Amino acid sequence: MVENSKLNIRLARIDDEKIVMDITEKTGFFRPVEMDIAREVFVDAALAKPACTYQSYVAEIQGSGARDQDSGIADNRRVAGWVCFGLTPCTLGTFDIYWIVVDASLHRQGIGRALLSFAHEEIKKQQGRLMVIETSGTSKYEPTQSFYLKNGFFLAGRIPEFYAPGDDKLIYLKIV
Amino acid sequence: MVENSKLNIRLARIDDEKIVMDITEKTGFFRPVEMDIAREVFVDAALAKPACTYQSYVAEIQGSGARDQDSGIADNRRVAGWVCFGLTPCTLGTFDIYWIVVDASLHRQGIGRALLSFAHEEIKKQQGRLMVIETSGTSKYEPTQSFYLKNGFFLAGRIPEFYAPGDDKLIYLKIV
Repeated sequence: MVENSKLNIRLARIDDEKIVMDITEKTGFFRPVEMDIAREVFVDAALAKPACTYQSYVAEIQGSGARDQDSGIADNRRVAGWVCFGLTPCTLGTFDIYWIVVDASLHRQGIGRALLSFAHEEIKKQQGRLMVIETSGTSKYEPTQSFYLKNGFFLAGRIPEFYAPGDDKLIYLKIV
Repeated sequence: MVENSKLNIRLARIDDEKIVMDITEKTGFFRPVEMDIAREVFVDAALAKPACTYQSYVAEIQGSGARDQDSGIADNRRVAGWVCFGLTPCTLGTFDIYWIVVDASLHRQGIGRALLSFAHEEIKKQQGRLMVIETSGTSKYEPTQSFYLKNGFFLAGRIPEFYAPGDDKLIYLKIV
């Protein structure tokens, strides 16, 4: 587990784009078309485009001492994950967790849980009633599905073949 | 019923915005925030904004002879309804029917069915597999719910309290 004192969650900035997209891609969970959407969402949120409802945060680990490949400068903060959520259009108080990703080399260390818990607190502050997460029902996503269940979400629905043939959509909810 | 020969379905244009928004608002089904989204969707599609996935069509009735309030010119075409659909992001071949509205004074004349059937044919041409419609589970929407069932959709899920307290989301599907 990463100690809480070493984990910092802050608003995502446009200069986080490369590392966040690298982390997202390296999870191996997203198709190219999904990566395009992840990038669009990330950039829209980071630039705070008008009418953008996305709220986008990164988790960074402090004191890693990783050296930047391009600049050679030792950086004592390393972006380890990303969460993006927002008020679901046409709803009163329902928030979607659109994206949550953690660096594949840092899984099972509580970073995902910390990001989700952070989103929950933010949503509560914004008078959110309900959190929704949608994910794939394929076996590849079983760790993801378990992660939501372990974090207090319940399965509210399954939409057959939604994402692709043989790829159902699961809808998880959590009361805020 | 409006005779098929009198009903024409064509791409929505930006100069249809006022009549389509009037029709949408006068159904009495949408909150102001939903009207804002309807307008945004309509305009984005009509202007074919980059990366816009919306496909937006109006049904017009010919030969109504209605006189334009501003110009006084008799117009023999009257916009009677609107449908907006598109490929659901992050899916292969799933299409959402985002909006379908018919002039409240012209309900039960087959215009909604014609718009839905048109969307189905277009989606089929685009190799769509699945159509999705989401709507409210409140009793006010019972005619809407019946309309989807009568048109071959089935209820695939109900997300409790999704739109607002006491206002579930129903998810209807139809195989293309």
